Amino acid sequence: MRDFVITISREYGSGGHDIGKRLAERLGIPFYDREIVELTAEKHAIDAVRLSEMEEQSRLPRWFGFGPEPDADDRLFLLQSRTIVELARQPCVIVGRCADFVLQNHPRRYSFFIYAGFKQRLAHMQQANGRYRKTDDPAREVLKMDRRRAAYYKYHTGQEWGKASNYHLSVDSGTLGPRTVDLLEQFVTLTQPKGTEEEQM
Amino acid sequence: MRDFVITISREYGSGGHDIGKRLAERLGIPFYDREIVELTAEKHAIDAVRLSEMEEQSRLPRWFGFGPEPDADDRLFLLQSRTIVELARQPCVIVGRCADFVLQNHPRRYSFFIYAGFKQRLAHMQQANGRYRKTDDPAREVLKMDRRRAAYYKYHTGQEWGKASNYHLSVDSGTLGPRTVDLLEQFVTLTQPKGTEEEQM
Repeated sequence: MRDFVITISREYGSGGHDIGKRLAERLGIPFYDREIVELTAEKHAIDAVRLSEMEEQSRLPRWFGFGPEPDADDRLFLLQSRTIVELARQPCVIVGRCADFVLQNHPRRYSFFIYAGFKQRLAHMQQANGRYRKTDDPAREVLKMDRRRAAYYKYHTGQEWGKASNYHLSVDSGTLGPRTVDLLEQFVTLTQPKGTEEEQM
Repeated sequence: MRDFVITISREYGSGGHDIGKRLAERLGIPFYDREIVELTAEKHAIDAVRLSEMEEQSRLPRWFGFGPEPDADDRLFLLQSRTIVELARQPCVIVGRCADFVLQNHPRRYSFFIYAGFKQRLAHMQQANGRYRKTDDPAREVLKMDRRRAAYYKYHTGQEWGKASNYHLSVDSGTLGPRTVDLLEQFVTLTQPKGTEEEQM
């Protein structure tokens, strides 16, 4: 029975979006990434572009005194988190947006982290044929997005982004490439009950 | 062709030793954990018990000025690292001893990190039937060993222990139990060349 929810956190350029999408296709369940922004905007009549911009901005700590509208920012995170909780009533794959943290009490949640070496991420972005934002300096973009995502995660969850023990599985997509999907599928398969087989760790 | 070396780092109580041992059995390659201490002691005519004790001690930073014989400690780490490099000339599974760091330039090295939730580690230790050191306070032992291993890793490698991107794969053995071995085996299988199949991440 497919009663689980999968959350995927991913480093920029690791191919985590595509890996999540293919996993959802294989498991026959819906896939959400930026769609969460659109669904939230739609429900609460907010401009999706504005919401998306705010989400991308690095979070400054509260003691800094000023920053990108911290209150509005927190409110939007809350609305987005509600969308995630609603979506998680049905099996699905959710990428980004601290969904692993938002759904931390979900009884059947699998949380994956996808990353890759710096060079491999640059090579992947070059091959990815316009699926990443255009930039003259991809190396700078990767470093910037790493910092932003780590700051976003830290601000909203208080936890370290990319710490293995925060996830059920972390995998280097630079080693496995497209076969990373096979490994994630295997993880899900292995968590399914196997009848009377005896279990000892 | 089995020309790879597998290193396993593991949280205390996660069952990482047994998981590594079974993986080595399945792959038909040797397994080394504490054997590395014995091999090093034997080769250099050092007392294995003393070497083992030193290895267990938490590392104090150099600026602290005094501590558990820092120079002797560094020398022993170096000797142990040489043993690891020697062993890695043949396919094998090596547990602990910063082998992932020592072998970081090995061309076909897979580095795994095994961890589990606190309660699951305590439960596992209780079931493990004397395979863990006897203690009246297992919770304290787990916390102490976590701190020691993190300090040992930080001291000798300068890196954070348990940071996902330092490994090829990190997995929560509390979720998969003994099936963790299946997942690790799957990872190794997926890294083997598959003929002419086209690869795109």
